[in-house]
Amino acid sequence: MNHEKALQAVEQLMIKTVESDVEVLQDASRHILAAGGKRMRPRMTLLAYEAVGGVAMDTALPVAAAVELVHTATLVHDDINDHGVMRRGRQTINAIWGRTFALLTGDFLFTKVYTLMAPYGDLNIIFAEMTAALVEGETLQAAAAKAGKLDRETYARIIAKKTASLFAGAAKLGAMLGKATPQQVEALYQYGFNLGLAFQIVDDILDLIADSEKLGKTAGIDLTQGKGFATAMATNGNSVHGSVAVAEAQEEDPAAAFKRKLLQGNYIEEGWQQARQLAAFAKMQLEILPPSAARDELARLTEAAVERDY
Amino acid sequence: MNHEKALQAVEQLMIKTVESDVEVLQDASRHILAAGGKRMRPRMTLLAYEAVGGVAMDTALPVAAAVELVHTATLVHDDINDHGVMRRGRQTINAIWGRTFALLTGDFLFTKVYTLMAPYGDLNIIFAEMTAALVEGETLQAAAAKAGKLDRETYARIIAKKTASLFAGAAKLGAMLGKATPQQVEALYQYGFNLGLAFQIVDDILDLIADSEKLGKTAGIDLTQGKGFATAMATNGNSVHGSVAVAEAQEEDPAAAFKRKLLQGNYIEEGWQQARQLAAFAKMQLEILPPSAARDELARLTEAAVERDY
Repeated sequence: MNHEKALQAVEQLMIKTVESDVEVLQDASRHILAAGGKRMRPRMTLLAYEAVGGVAMDTALPVAAAVELVHTATLVHDDINDHGVMRRGRQTINAIWGRTFALLTGDFLFTKVYTLMAPYGDLNIIFAEMTAALVEGETLQAAAAKAGKLDRETYARIIAKKTASLFAGAAKLGAMLGKATPQQVEALYQYGFNLGLAFQIVDDILDLIADSEKLGKTAGIDLTQGKGFATAMATNGNSVHGSVAVAEAQEEDPAAAFKRKLLQGNYIEEGWQQARQLAAFAKMQLEILPPSAARDELARLTEAAVERDY
Repeated sequence: MNHEKALQAVEQLMIKTVESDVEVLQDASRHILAAGGKRMRPRMTLLAYEAVGGVAMDTALPVAAAVELVHTATLVHDDINDHGVMRRGRQTINAIWGRTFALLTGDFLFTKVYTLMAPYGDLNIIFAEMTAALVEGETLQAAAAKAGKLDRETYARIIAKKTASLFAGAAKLGAMLGKATPQQVEALYQYGFNLGLAFQIVDDILDLIADSEKLGKTAGIDLTQGKGFATAMATNGNSVHGSVAVAEAQEEDPAAAFKRKLLQGNYIEEGWQQARQLAAFAKMQLEILPPSAARDELARLTEAAVERDY
């Protein structure tokens, strides 16, 4: 089974997994799944599996699907907390079905993840820890946003937990399933972790500089909510609301003023630099693997993660 | 290890499981855990394990803790959707920390459940299915409340999914862990299922007739939200809002008017009857088990579930 075919099988498996005789759960789940997405995480699971010599691709499909579904569950809950109305070019579940059903759909996706993972024994320990880290990262982010302060160290901790842990877990799970050596498992974990950090920094920069249409989601939310890389870089622990207050005194739109300040500084360029460096470090980890098409594709992902405009 | 000691060990395990360096998650989780509760579900897991001859109680503790934690996760999310401010005699997480952190705390508890269950192999399939049913039941309930209609059949379906499936699963998991015969597993499943139905009917009646202080949570929410046994019995699919409209025309408080209507009918008594019958059926299932203190305690639970005023 080649890589693209395997990814299609993952899509089908996800659609099947969210079957329910409770219509709204099935409809809402399929609504967000059908919107697609980059599918970075399941790609990494499948490619890591192949790259370490795994040959029974069927055994990796449920794990790849579980990884993407748990990510999807958190997106659904994020959109409640952020009042997001657009996601992957579609209306959010929140916007269409309302908050109660969005919350329950997220819960439903969380439970279905574990239906998929049930047969995988000890891999569930890794999976559960990675998911707990993800929720912890989201919580740290919400706490920083509420406090109206975000320093660079906290930002690093947030993206390590909320994004890098899942990327790292996705690659590690694929490697373990493929019976990788301990060194390969560790290398693929580091690959995923660094790629996850890079990916999130780029996401946060794009939230600031790209338009909503291209992103497929409402742009600029991070900034107004005191989140994201640029916010951390530019304020480094000082109150976001403070910067905004100055703008208000000058009768300028506060968000626009803050954005102008960020764009004037060197912060965006600094962010790209960091992301590229992390991606390069991720790529380096692949040297331990034997040459293969899957390894090449993993290398390509490190470039795709940072050289993108949506 | 006797039963009460095992239950204390479950409490300690739950407290330990929600450890996190993200303070708000740990604080909020421990806030609701420390409030206690009847702990019906973990009791059933432990007692079922013992009643079928299980001797290594330590192996049943994480499963009992997981069952109670998944129940707790849904309570936390319920309180968001219902705007509940009191739970188990304490302020809800929602009321203290706000909606965003309540949502994330519920998610955190869901993920921690699977950390506990990770070592239990195929039991995870049962666990995941039971949890999915639980979320489906909550969703059916929200859909009926939104439509302002609740017929008896839908009510039965809701409580089967949202309560009975978890009670049934709790007992079944204990039985399977204790290496029960297939007949014993089935009997304990039926025991839990029927006891769960009875328990929920009584809960719904108490929501209507008891006061908030005794219940430890805000009473009467179900009625105003078009939920619960009495609502289903009295309206049987007709619009709750219709009954309320009549009251409004008569310049009477709508909820009070509807409550008066319910209390005048035979609905409450009918509910008690049904609950007692279901509890008796649950008790009957225990006959397949050899006599033991655990079996006696399981029998006592069937009485405690229906003969209570909070």
